[in-house]
Amino acid sequence: MMHKLIPADPDFESRVRASFARQEFMATLGATLERVEPGAIEIHLPVRASLSQQHGFVHAGAVAAVADSACGYAAFSLMPADAGVLAIEFKINLLAPAAGELVIARGRVIRAGRTLTVCQADVVAVANGEERNVAILTSTNMTVRDRPEVRG
Amino acid sequence: MMHKLIPADPDFESRVRASFARQEFMATLGATLERVEPGAIEIHLPVRASLSQQHGFVHAGAVAAVADSACGYAAFSLMPADAGVLAIEFKINLLAPAAGELVIARGRVIRAGRTLTVCQADVVAVANGEERNVAILTSTNMTVRDRPEVRG
Amino acid sequence: MMHKLIPADPDFESRVRASFARQEFMATLGATLERVEPGAIEIHLPVRASLSQQHGFVHAGAVAAVADSACGYAAFSLMPADAGVLAIEFKINLLAPAAGELVIARGRVIRAGRTLTVCQADVVAVANGEERNVAILTSTNMTVRDRPEVRG
Amino acid sequence: MMHKLIPADPDFESRVRASFARQEFMATLGATLERVEPGAIEIHLPVRASLSQQHGFVHAGAVAAVADSACGYAAFSLMPADAGVLAIEFKINLLAPAAGELVIARGRVIRAGRTLTVCQADVVAVANGEERNVAILTSTNMTVRDRPEVRG
Repeated sequence: MMHKLIPADPDFESRVRASFARQEFMATLGATLERVEPGAIEIHLPVRASLSQQHGFVHAGAVAAVADSACGYAAFSLMPADAGVLAIEFKINLLAPAAGELVIARGRVIRAGRTLTVCQADVVAVANGEERNVAILTSTNMTVRDRPEVRG
Repeated sequence: MMHKLIPADPDFESRVRASFARQEFMATLGATLERVEPGAIEIHLPVRASLSQQHGFVHAGAVAAVADSACGYAAFSLMPADAGVLAIEFKINLLAPAAGELVIARGRVIRAGRTLTVCQADVVAVANGEERNVAILTSTNMTVRDRPEVRG
Repeated sequence: MMHKLIPADPDFESRVRASFARQEFMATLGATLERVEPGAIEIHLPVRASLSQQHGFVHAGAVAAVADSACGYAAFSLMPADAGVLAIEFKINLLAPAAGELVIARGRVIRAGRTLTVCQADVVAVANGEERNVAILTSTNMTVRDRPEVRG
Repeated sequence: MMHKLIPADPDFESRVRASFARQEFMATLGATLERVEPGAIEIHLPVRASLSQQHGFVHAGAVAAVADSACGYAAFSLMPADAGVLAIEFKINLLAPAAGELVIARGRVIRAGRTLTVCQADVVAVANGEERNVAILTSTNMTVRDRPEVRG
């Protein structure tokens, strides 16, 4: 799985950060974009009550949201400057309830094609300084060209 | 797929509604629980800017969150009164960008087993009074017994 | 989910049957193509010992193979005459062990796009004349153009 | 993801090999069980025309079958001596057409729980001595106890 990942746009990082900043849902969640590398993205989500499901754990939908965004931006980081990215499907396995102080989603590109890019994310929860795997997600992301409303 | 779905607990509706009310994430999203029937749940999510991804559509994570909850509560509606429900995995296909006024997730039980219940949700977006299919989700949900912290 | 499904090629049925006949793996399994309608395909797989897993049920891989082909040909039935179809991903939930005399996979198109077509298949096993749901599969299929080696 | 994986049964290898030998479908495919380690399994599938789809590549169902078995036996290798394993769901992304001389599926345990074990498999095709990634699969496998017909 260790292809050399070369971004089509040398200015990929500022493009990724600008697009993330437009995802209002990430602000609603309280998620922040940390690491941005070619084909690899890390998003942090501090655990808070407003994200919880009925037992007090972080809702699977919030976990999926940051893992999906981490994957989408990992794909987007390799795309040409004028392209847009859209997730077409993802699958998540929830390995353990997400609890603690912080959820970290690490997305990476598995295979980048002309039209489709497959990514995976590992999601961990940090409690008392210890990481615990809470989810894995696989997604397929589309490179969208020539649609001005789907750019970035 | 038309098994007769008989809830183990005649008081299933109030149990589902009480559990949904404890999901703070649903309030954060602005989602409301509408229809509650044995093995079938409908959740509404009014479209608002705070849920958007970078192109202004509803974020796939928000779509997945309400579809996952609709499935989880469809499963939960059939469970014994002292059980808890946990999603163990789900898969979503995003058929079209979610835009308009309202997103509706309709979850239903496909197969209810002693330990595992498989559900599917159709998600539509309503724009100008017209429904458009935007996503389908399949999930597996676990009936949890004898774990007081995972009840409801 | 009830779009009108109109095949781009009026001669879709013979095109589907010719392509299926080239899938040597279907002959290896003993699978046959039964119903061919626009966006809807039925494949039959008689149960035999050569398909079994360790407990004597039909192996999940054999179930997945016929469900995947039913979905792929449902997608292909709507495509232009010069296109090819490739599955890019699928997900299967195994609802019950597949046993009895016959496995039937019924694939149908959920959404047909220019590049991607999402399909679902229900798989039943027939034992003593009774159908039992054994699996559901969701797949994404790509319309391939301009690649002579991926045609049909 | 690097838990120490300790098999519950020291005699796990012979148990895995005996169960694999009972999967008649693996013999039908021509697949062989190579490496057996705690939580990690490798299966080889020589490419042959009888496995092909319509363009001459190995059918996705055959690829899925060996990847699913590699995951199931990775899970099974850690289970108690009297347990049985059943896949409850899997998801596969097809990264490239499978062609060449040999397909290799490498399954490993991601998380082993009391009831459910999540696994992933990488599938490569070997052509002219070079490995190429052709698929990734994620599966959930159930530990079955007290059902004599689902043992091994």
